[in-house]
Amino acid sequence: ISAGDYFFPRLLVEFARRHSGVKLDFGVCNREELLNQLTDNLTDLAIMVRPPLDMDTGSEPFAPHPYVVVAAPDHPLAARKRIPLSRLAREPFVVREKGSDTWNSMQEGFGDHLADLNIAMEIKSTETIKQAVIAGMGVSFLSAHTISSELQVGSLTVLDVQGFPLMLHWYVVHRRNKRLTPVAQAFKTFLMTDGGALIEQTIGFRPKPVARRLKSAAR
Amino acid sequence: ISAGDYFFPRLLVEFARRHSGVKLDFGVCNREELLNQLTDNLTDLAIMVRPPLDMDTGSEPFAPHPYVVVAAPDHPLAARKRIPLSRLAREPFVVREKGSDTWNSMQEGFGDHLADLNIAMEIKSTETIKQAVIAGMGVSFLSAHTISSELQVGSLTVLDVQGFPLMLHWYVVHRRNKRLTPVAQAFKTFLMTDGGALIEQTIGFRPKPVARRLKSAAR
Repeated sequence: ISAGDYFFPRLLVEFARRHSGVKLDFGVCNREELLNQLTDNLTDLAIMVRPPLDMDTGSEPFAPHPYVVVAAPDHPLAARKRIPLSRLAREPFVVREKGSDTWNSMQEGFGDHLADLNIAMEIKSTETIKQAVIAGMGVSFLSAHTISSELQVGSLTVLDVQGFPLMLHWYVVHRRNKRLTPVAQAFKTFLMTDGGALIEQTIGFRPKPVARRLKSAAR
Repeated sequence: ISAGDYFFPRLLVEFARRHSGVKLDFGVCNREELLNQLTDNLTDLAIMVRPPLDMDTGSEPFAPHPYVVVAAPDHPLAARKRIPLSRLAREPFVVREKGSDTWNSMQEGFGDHLADLNIAMEIKSTETIKQAVIAGMGVSFLSAHTISSELQVGSLTVLDVQGFPLMLHWYVVHRRNKRLTPVAQAFKTFLMTDGGALIEQTIGFRPKPVARRLKSAAR
């Protein structure tokens, strides 16, 4: 959810621009709150990286969500190509707390190599993690959708790690038996047709083709 | 506390560089957690905008902490000089939740004019507020220490509002009867002597002299 902070307002504004008279009401909450709200029928639609798997909710991917390994631009690995995970394990790693979306995605990205990481510090805020990496405390694994300002300014760089970017997806989630209001249905359609392009335009991170080829080759 | 996320890692790294052998251990937590930790003697030093006022804790200001009103660069008020608070009250305002440091500082900055604000949306995350303002949902009141990347990139601009920037301070806080360890004492001395300059160097926001003159004139 936290990574959604970085583009979600832009999506809402664009949707409201196309549908005049729509009043915006949205909140940012953690995973547990969101799941409760869906269960209690308080939320029409949710946007998530890791949709619930029970039969009662349906979810459809509408945009790619790349995750990357970041470092300070003067980091010794910044100029290296195709860094193996075993080399990365020698660097101090700054991580989000266990249970966070970012931690769960990191588990997917590193697989069995996760246990080899040299975890130097656990920080509960993406913003502080970025500042810690900029200050030289180590490297980190973050959603590419949270670092666009830092990449533009040049205070962070994306390391060329084998198997990265890790490509996950943003899903739109709702209860399967829920009758969507016309506005909710229109917003869902808007996400499915234009969400991906708008996020890319807002965030400006486009994964390198070479990484995409690697991923297809691995399948 | 949240605004501290944006420079605190840099201070710690600089301190560790000067004192080799020091192991870093820090956390970001909310005000209530921090006050409990101070009471229970679990935390040596805390950095806060609004130190507790009871007799048991001492606090010393070590760096200025400006707060500003931000807008998207294409906002109609972006080119205006010396905007009166009454004019600002006509704009949709995006705010942090009541009880947050930012909300409390906003109360100080707007005083009686707070009730006049046209509050369009309350968002619990500084990062999302910035994105909402960039997307054109309104203007907002934020710590200048949270927006340096956006100012550099040019995605946000600081409005020239009368009486702003609001100048508060960062305080270093500890229990009065606490015997500080040599490392904690050294860190406190480091903050008092070099903290302000390092924060300014990290954050890069220097309040305009005209605003400082206004504030002195108001005293």
